[in-house]
Amino acid sequence: MKEITAIIRMNKINQTKEALISAGFPAATAVRAVGRGRRPVEPDLLNAINENPKDSADLLSTLSQGGRLYPKRIITLVVPDSKVSEIIQAIIKVNQTGNPGDGKIFVGTVADVVRVRTGETGAAAIDEMNGIERR
Amino acid sequence: MKEITAIIRMNKINQTKEALISAGFPAATAVRAVGRGRRPVEPDLLNAINENPKDSADLLSTLSQGGRLYPKRIITLVVPDSKVSEIIQAIIKVNQTGNPGDGKIFVGTVADVVRVRTGETGAAAIDEMNGIERR
Amino acid sequence: MKEITAIIRMNKINQTKEALISAGFPAATAVRAVGRGRRPVEPDLLNAINENPKDSADLLSTLSQGGRLYPKRIITLVVPDSKVSEIIQAIIKVNQTGNPGDGKIFVGTVADVVRVRTGETGAAAIDEMNGIERR
Repeated sequence: MKEITAIIRMNKINQTKEALISAGFPAATAVRAVGRGRRPVEPDLLNAINENPKDSADLLSTLSQGGRLYPKRIITLVVPDSKVSEIIQAIIKVNQTGNPGDGKIFVGTVADVVRVRTGETGAAAIDEMNGIERR
Repeated sequence: MKEITAIIRMNKINQTKEALISAGFPAATAVRAVGRGRRPVEPDLLNAINENPKDSADLLSTLSQGGRLYPKRIITLVVPDSKVSEIIQAIIKVNQTGNPGDGKIFVGTVADVVRVRTGETGAAAIDEMNGIERR
Repeated sequence: MKEITAIIRMNKINQTKEALISAGFPAATAVRAVGRGRRPVEPDLLNAINENPKDSADLLSTLSQGGRLYPKRIITLVVPDSKVSEIIQAIIKVNQTGNPGDGKIFVGTVADVVRVRTGETGAAAIDEMNGIERR
């Protein structure tokens, strides 16, 4: 089993949730976060500073905001190893805009899972095959 | 060392905290989240739709709310391997109602832990044996 | 690749963020949390109770507050194995006050990382070497 953690734009949480439901993986948990990636120094901005050094105060001010953390959402789900690549593609499909800030997806190993209601462990605890709850 | 992450009902956080303290594992971190498990399609609801197709609009509307995420709490603690099963049982004991939404417990492997105050690492950093802080 | 998760005092998030940027690891995600470490039974408090049993009601009341969870921040970043120790030292440097509550740092293994914008995976997805975004 693998834990997939996607850090995404806050306005992409609903589309991501729907994409996961469509892919057959409705069980997920989401958390509010703030974050950033690498300092997004825009090449266009560097060019502008080089070409117009006198006007660079505002541009440098924009650069110095690189330390800011932006609102993000973290969505986490645990899935069988065989489904990891399919789910990553589903997340990328709705989150890839091509601009900095699209987010990252981390894949980690999970040693065990327990469904609290039934005490089921392992694969049975994350079984999504049966849409009807067994009672 | 293992990281135990329990996703539980928001109104179970205090009982869970007390259960962990009683079990001798007071060190824990909790985060607000929203989440859901498998789509909880109630067998009774499916039967009702089959038996009264004319009245099924409201029932189908209920079904379509399956995508909603509910408020949850995530509580995380790091413990020695030998204590994992005891702690899982302590968490299940106060969280198992038998209804969908009871939550899940994930167990992951932790490569190392550092106690920031002392710089201690590994088992010493999560030592709960001594209730009195060493200074 | 390793995931470093630091649970720190809420008023240390900016210093920690700056320390990580200075160390060349600006990409991080932060979450609000509540938490506690081991029950911080102060030796001075125990001594006071032993010496003045009649005045111990207030002291015992203080002790019983040990179950409270305090506001914390969780900051998480994923880095190459070779940088783990340097980053832990950078986090300790700005967070170690010597008092209980300084926090903990957990190190976990990450199986894979994907940069959503480009689809890059593995080391390329967390490459911090190039401050200018490649397009």
